[in-house]
Amino acid sequence: MVKKFRFNNPIATYAVVKDIECEKGALSYFTHNNNAFSYTMSDTTAVYGLGEAVRGINKRGWIYEGYCSDDPCHTEDKRSLYGAHNFLIIDDKNAGGDRFGVFFDYPTRITFDIGYTKQNELVVSVDKPNIDIYIIEGDTLRDIVRNFREIIGQSYVAPKWALGFMQSRWSYFTKDDVERIADSYSDADIPLDAIFLDIDYMERYKDFTIHNERFPDFENFVSYMKQKGVRLVPIIDAAVKVESGYDVYEEGVKNNYFCKGDDNKDYIVGVWPGKAVFPDFLNQDVAKWFGDKYKMLTDMGIEGFWNDMNEPAIFYSEKGLEKAFSQVDSYKEMSLDANTYFDCRDSFSKLSNSQFDYNNFYHNYNGKKIKHNDVHNLYGYFMTKSAQESFERNCPDKRILMFSRASYIGAHRYGGIWTGDNHSWWSHILLCLKQMPSLNMCGFVYSGCDMGGFNGNCTRDLLLRWLSLSIFTPLMRNHSACGTKDQECFAFENTSDFKNIVDLRYRLIPYIYSEYMKAVLSDDMYIRPLSFDYENDEIAKAVEDQLMVGESIMIAPVYTQNANGRYVYIPEDMIQLRLNGDSTISESEIKKGHHYIDIPLNEVVFFIKKDHCIPLCDSAKNIESLDYNTIKLYGNGKSYELYDDDGFTKAPDLSKTKTILK
Amino acid sequence: MVKKFRFNNPIATYAVVKDIECEKGALSYFTHNNNAFSYTMSDTTAVYGLGEAVRGINKRGWIYEGYCSDDPCHTEDKRSLYGAHNFLIIDDKNAGGDRFGVFFDYPTRITFDIGYTKQNELVVSVDKPNIDIYIIEGDTLRDIVRNFREIIGQSYVAPKWALGFMQSRWSYFTKDDVERIADSYSDADIPLDAIFLDIDYMERYKDFTIHNERFPDFENFVSYMKQKGVRLVPIIDAAVKVESGYDVYEEGVKNNYFCKGDDNKDYIVGVWPGKAVFPDFLNQDVAKWFGDKYKMLTDMGIEGFWNDMNEPAIFYSEKGLEKAFSQVDSYKEMSLDANTYFDCRDSFSKLSNSQFDYNNFYHNYNGKKIKHNDVHNLYGYFMTKSAQESFERNCPDKRILMFSRASYIGAHRYGGIWTGDNHSWWSHILLCLKQMPSLNMCGFVYSGCDMGGFNGNCTRDLLLRWLSLSIFTPLMRNHSACGTKDQECFAFENTSDFKNIVDLRYRLIPYIYSEYMKAVLSDDMYIRPLSFDYENDEIAKAVEDQLMVGESIMIAPVYTQNANGRYVYIPEDMIQLRLNGDSTISESEIKKGHHYIDIPLNEVVFFIKKDHCIPLCDSAKNIESLDYNTIKLYGNGKSYELYDDDGFTKAPDLSKTKTILK
Repeated sequence: MVKKFRFNNPIATYAVVKDIECEKGALSYFTHNNNAFSYTMSDTTAVYGLGEAVRGINKRGWIYEGYCSDDPCHTEDKRSLYGAHNFLIIDDKNAGGDRFGVFFDYPTRITFDIGYTKQNELVVSVDKPNIDIYIIEGDTLRDIVRNFREIIGQSYVAPKWALGFMQSRWSYFTKDDVERIADSYSDADIPLDAIFLDIDYMERYKDFTIHNERFPDFENFVSYMKQKGVRLVPIIDAAVKVESGYDVYEEGVKNNYFCKGDDNKDYIVGVWPGKAVFPDFLNQDVAKWFGDKYKMLTDMGIEGFWNDMNEPAIFYSEKGLEKAFSQVDSYKEMSLDANTYFDCRDSFSKLSNSQFDYNNFYHNYNGKKIKHNDVHNLYGYFMTKSAQESFERNCPDKRILMFSRASYIGAHRYGGIWTGDNHSWWSHILLCLKQMPSLNMCGFVYSGCDMGGFNGNCTRDLLLRWLSLSIFTPLMRNHSACGTKDQECFAFENTSDFKNIVDLRYRLIPYIYSEYMKAVLSDDMYIRPLSFDYENDEIAKAVEDQLMVGESIMIAPVYTQNANGRYVYIPEDMIQLRLNGDSTISESEIKKGHHYIDIPLNEVVFFIKKDHCIPLCDSAKNIESLDYNTIKLYGNGKSYELYDDDGFTKAPDLSKTKTILK
Repeated sequence: MVKKFRFNNPIATYAVVKDIECEKGALSYFTHNNNAFSYTMSDTTAVYGLGEAVRGINKRGWIYEGYCSDDPCHTEDKRSLYGAHNFLIIDDKNAGGDRFGVFFDYPTRITFDIGYTKQNELVVSVDKPNIDIYIIEGDTLRDIVRNFREIIGQSYVAPKWALGFMQSRWSYFTKDDVERIADSYSDADIPLDAIFLDIDYMERYKDFTIHNERFPDFENFVSYMKQKGVRLVPIIDAAVKVESGYDVYEEGVKNNYFCKGDDNKDYIVGVWPGKAVFPDFLNQDVAKWFGDKYKMLTDMGIEGFWNDMNEPAIFYSEKGLEKAFSQVDSYKEMSLDANTYFDCRDSFSKLSNSQFDYNNFYHNYNGKKIKHNDVHNLYGYFMTKSAQESFERNCPDKRILMFSRASYIGAHRYGGIWTGDNHSWWSHILLCLKQMPSLNMCGFVYSGCDMGGFNGNCTRDLLLRWLSLSIFTPLMRNHSACGTKDQECFAFENTSDFKNIVDLRYRLIPYIYSEYMKAVLSDDMYIRPLSFDYENDEIAKAVEDQLMVGESIMIAPVYTQNANGRYVYIPEDMIQLRLNGDSTISESEIKKGHHYIDIPLNEVVFFIKKDHCIPLCDSAKNIESLDYNTIKLYGNGKSYELYDDDGFTKAPDLSKTKTILK
């Protein structure tokens, strides 16, 4: 079902964990010509995949790149975001054409022209054709995903508490700030499971330090907050501050653990702490060393982390900065016309995340010196791997929350991802919706976006509508950037409307956790495009704003401002569930076909598949407080297969799934 | 029906041309408190207006500014674009609430918080409350618009040829390029009325010069192209190059015609030509002088212009640049942390269009020295006025095409506008759709956006879908930035699909010109939100992706990629017209209600109101070649009231409207 084609001499990525012998014949489906692999689509061919990317569930009509990119402006014209997820499914089976999956295992820049240059031509191209290409077949679209997921290994399993609602901001500066956030949620009677610590909890942005004035007696504070029912989740950045006397830096220097420049000296970049260096996560010794540093925090009771800036993001490098200053100098005496002025201006603005830097430092990978650019997409992946492998060693008895900004397929075994620095834009509700199924295909089941939007200012209506999508994504975090308006639910008028919707998340947890775990443990998708469930339905195939969530639910969130509702395509007779503004739930039948559905700002509507049932329990202040004895089944099925466990076990066992009868 | 309230001592804007006595009592509807004017909305209140702005037809849920801004990235979070159009309609009449219009006549920055800070609070605030506020009442929404338009004067009337399809690019560099474009359209049998000349037709970006190597014997070339049926439309920039020997510069210097700095010297800025100065269009002598310069081009046979960079756009000023260089110097020896690095980087990136510069140069306005910032919104408006008034003097017998980037209400009497530097984004089809009715409210009837998108790369499907909106906007121009993919219709596969849709524009011209002229000459809207025609229909009120075009047509263009059609709300029984891929037209009845309508990429679907008829003629190579003897009526009405004239007359007369029977 899976065929592997090797071209020349690829660099190992460890994305695929199954041993597969290389085919000897020509590559299936594609025409291969030097650096390019081409496929001709028909007018009806759909192309799925690419994980974290802009545009549609159907990726046709744009050019994308697999190259981890720190880009905080996710407009339609971007080619790459933080993750490189080079898996596609090409489907024209309903029209008698092909249906297959393809994974391009390639650790640096790769380009996917999917009907961008020519409407019906798909061309995948690389700089140097050292590449493994896997062709994955299967009867159904889901079979193809399962067959792919089987070769890349089981996805990371998050602890159950990490399915709760979580609040973040860059930054809650002090322990008092953090406590105030928790208390405000508690006062508003809105459930909450975690609060995130962004970069300012550290001392001068130094990884594995705690700012002692802002967070005195951190260990006690962690435990105090846990007693309140709220876990703290600190950030870890990729780069290590250059500071003499700082143990992480000193140890790294001593052991040659940092990436080197041409001159074999540590390659110095500027990131949050100012001058900093990159741990060479591709070197196993370094990975183990850095991973073990998390122990300092897990020993204090921390049970979750987010790895950031690991594309890796670079504001500037020492070398780049020197160049920029001398460039600017050269413009000083000139009379600047438009072009020379722009060049002068760009001396600085083009310093960040530059190809110049990615070409100018090196890793020690499997004993070989290798240019960063050649393994660029592995950096964040190996940072996440380093962390998760340390948790296996140091916290063998429980699951630790781990998710990352940068990623490559393979990283899905070690952590989840969030979709990075989005904006408080209505269009970014929809972007998140479209990214979720693509991420699921690529193994990133524990995923979600910054609800409410990271950059920019969020309005009350935007957050309410965003919530009605995010209550269905495994990672459900409200996060916002420094300098933006307060974005916590309690910062807006009528918090009861927020409570109503967040409560629904908690009422759905028996379903969400069960479906999430079943998907992960059976290499399946928790969130799917409609076409994956209704393969023969050409209307479903074109739906780009509804999703299947677990086996039984279809969602159709509102994502436009000042709308009173939306159009929904119902692909078969279903049960419509409406969360009313007073927290009651109404059930009604809805017929296959097109519908306009009224959805006021404080209500949520979703749909249960025919002959399916879903369990809802009463809400509670956090995940641990949920009482499954209050479960009731909704829908017109007869039973639900509930998976549950203690939420921490590292040996989850699907055979413990129980049937609940209606 | 219109009440004028004066606060303190406003600066004259001449936006309102009707003499209205000031009210003595308190401002109607609003609460006034120092610099803020507040109004409490209900949950169902809709707010229309603001002309060129981001977000919805209903402006609720964001904070906007009236401050002409050169911003090439029209994302949802922007507060202002190129035009400042401070007219709002507040409507809650269906729920028993208020319905009124309000115009804030204020020539500098004004802020409209429309449910941004608090969901139901509308707060309009200014720095210094020297302001005229007009409250406009009327029975219907359209009445309010007509009453407003009556006090601001009749909108600019474009020549008929300017309703044709027009092609632009930054830049067609030579006359051969221009001719090749015209011939390629001709070869593809796609109608075309004009080709635009962007900044490179000039000699070193100097206004009122022609680059003699690229465009030798310009006058003959203009006439040669006109014989081919294609008019040339050159750009005029606001700023004048500093260059000794350049007549425009020398004359301006001699006569003190340029804006001055604090030191009473010409304020030097950097724009396209490098160092440049701003003609003081607010000074009547300067306006006349600069306006008369267009004669050099009209004498060569030019019949249309676009005024650009007149917010005014500033890349840098001499003073700003000096500051930036010395700032960068001061960072040279520092070890830059994140914040200092960003500050260093922003030394240049924040130079453009800076408040510093707008506060640092002066006008001579009605005999008084006045700081630019205080009259910022008038600059582009007065540039357009200067041009149009010169056409009245120098080309009294025909209408000259004139449209501008920057504008203020009042400018609508002198020219149209385009919506500036949008992107090749699917979301910008929808943005254009939403801007059109708001612009019509404010008097900018001759308006449109850069079809296909200015910045970024356009795909075939995007341009086809964009066309199906733009064939209904008075200004229909395909324009794209330097460095982008070719965006002419013939640059894509299967040009016959493009021909089919552009032909529809020409087939519709009898209707479009007639409805456009009727709207302009009766102070009415050519493009309206659905709610303006179906005031009692609460569903219509929420529709944000359909428009009424003229008296008889409703449009519902597709604006999502890979869609096969879309949902359409039909507010009453209508006739559906479908332009098929083979250029035939199908008519069918469609019932009031919600519909999903299949619309393939090469088809256009629109709707004719009940008991209405619209005239379609055969297409032709350009507007002048249309044969109205081929007109046929579509729809289930009995007749159509056709307005037509020679397309040039300055004395258009609605009484010449003729009834055509079906």
